[in-house]
Amino acid sequence: MTVTIDINENIQKKNNEYAALNRQAFSSYRVFNMIGSPGAGKTAILERTAGILGDELAIIEGDVKTDLDAQRIISFGSQSIQIETGGGCHLNAEMVKDAVDRLDLSRVRIIVIENVGNLVCPSAYDLGEDAKVAVISLPEGDEKPRKYPALFMRVDLVLINKVDLRDVLAEYDLDRVREDCLKINPSVRVLEISAKTGKGFDEWMEYLTKEK
Amino acid sequence: MTVTIDINENIQKKNNEYAALNRQAFSSYRVFNMIGSPGAGKTAILERTAGILGDELAIIEGDVKTDLDAQRIISFGSQSIQIETGGGCHLNAEMVKDAVDRLDLSRVRIIVIENVGNLVCPSAYDLGEDAKVAVISLPEGDEKPRKYPALFMRVDLVLINKVDLRDVLAEYDLDRVREDCLKINPSVRVLEISAKTGKGFDEWMEYLTKEK
Repeated sequence: MTVTIDINENIQKKNNEYAALNRQAFSSYRVFNMIGSPGAGKTAILERTAGILGDELAIIEGDVKTDLDAQRIISFGSQSIQIETGGGCHLNAEMVKDAVDRLDLSRVRIIVIENVGNLVCPSAYDLGEDAKVAVISLPEGDEKPRKYPALFMRVDLVLINKVDLRDVLAEYDLDRVREDCLKINPSVRVLEISAKTGKGFDEWMEYLTKEK
Repeated sequence: MTVTIDINENIQKKNNEYAALNRQAFSSYRVFNMIGSPGAGKTAILERTAGILGDELAIIEGDVKTDLDAQRIISFGSQSIQIETGGGCHLNAEMVKDAVDRLDLSRVRIIVIENVGNLVCPSAYDLGEDAKVAVISLPEGDEKPRKYPALFMRVDLVLINKVDLRDVLAEYDLDRVREDCLKINPSVRVLEISAKTGKGFDEWMEYLTKEK
């Protein structure tokens, strides 16, 4: 058991060294680490974001398998590079460094790293980002902040996506989610958005593009 | 790197020893390991299942934090025990053994283990179950089998939940999901259900209760 912990410490130490390198390389960009369940709508949000920000935005896509998501983003007008973790349940800073080295950052101001769909493991790894953004969505149910506090205490912003489904999912208690987020993390910001209708995207753009 | 792999092998070896013990202890019961994203509706399915099967069913609930789900199940009429993994992203066979030891199995015929909400890590750990069941849902999008093949190749049954939302999520391609599942796993069974309306529950009950 002790051995396992030592190994984990070594993994974290190595990760933090790469995260520090990334943070230096990222000094001229705003960089976000986006974390949410599979199907919360992270890629759909980034498609619409790519359609607005175009070549000012670059997206690093993390998935266990396939480059479906990077292909989706590119068709909307931003650069995108896929990291396939090959079974790994989260991105680490070294994977991100390798991906960033392959991006052309000459016109880029904002980089979003879409982590592997998972509310647990990704929250424990610093990728060198400026801020973590959580994405949750109405169909998932309104108890997610309480069930996954380790994520919500580490994020700067929570996007509640798919608010266009509010009428058919009337049991989802938006006020409770907001209260739970603030209880876990009093400085967090919570935004209601819809990648389908564009609701909330003015505020999301304002958040992404504000000066560092 | 080699060291990490050795440690993982030891973890798997220890897990498999406990899984073998569980399998012996489970010989008179039908035992299922249910895996899906956070918010796919695993607990909602089990609530309705508890309402039908009552004390013939016992449910082991895995969550990172809180015993909200076990409380939900008990109110529907079946026994339930919560395992809080305290940050862990999946259940292991030892946790399940400890939980089973606390159940009263005198009237029980079926045990469902609801794993931590996660499509990646839980699929790698044998808990001693008879079969793994994947739960996906319409709002998550229809590319999940292709993105998480390591799970779908290991399951006996895929439940596609929230089909009551079919009208508002007309873009979800049920045929494609079914085809992708069968391409990855030719012997898998796929059922469309709704924990909200009860659609598909006759077939789900038939699956759960058939003789071992």
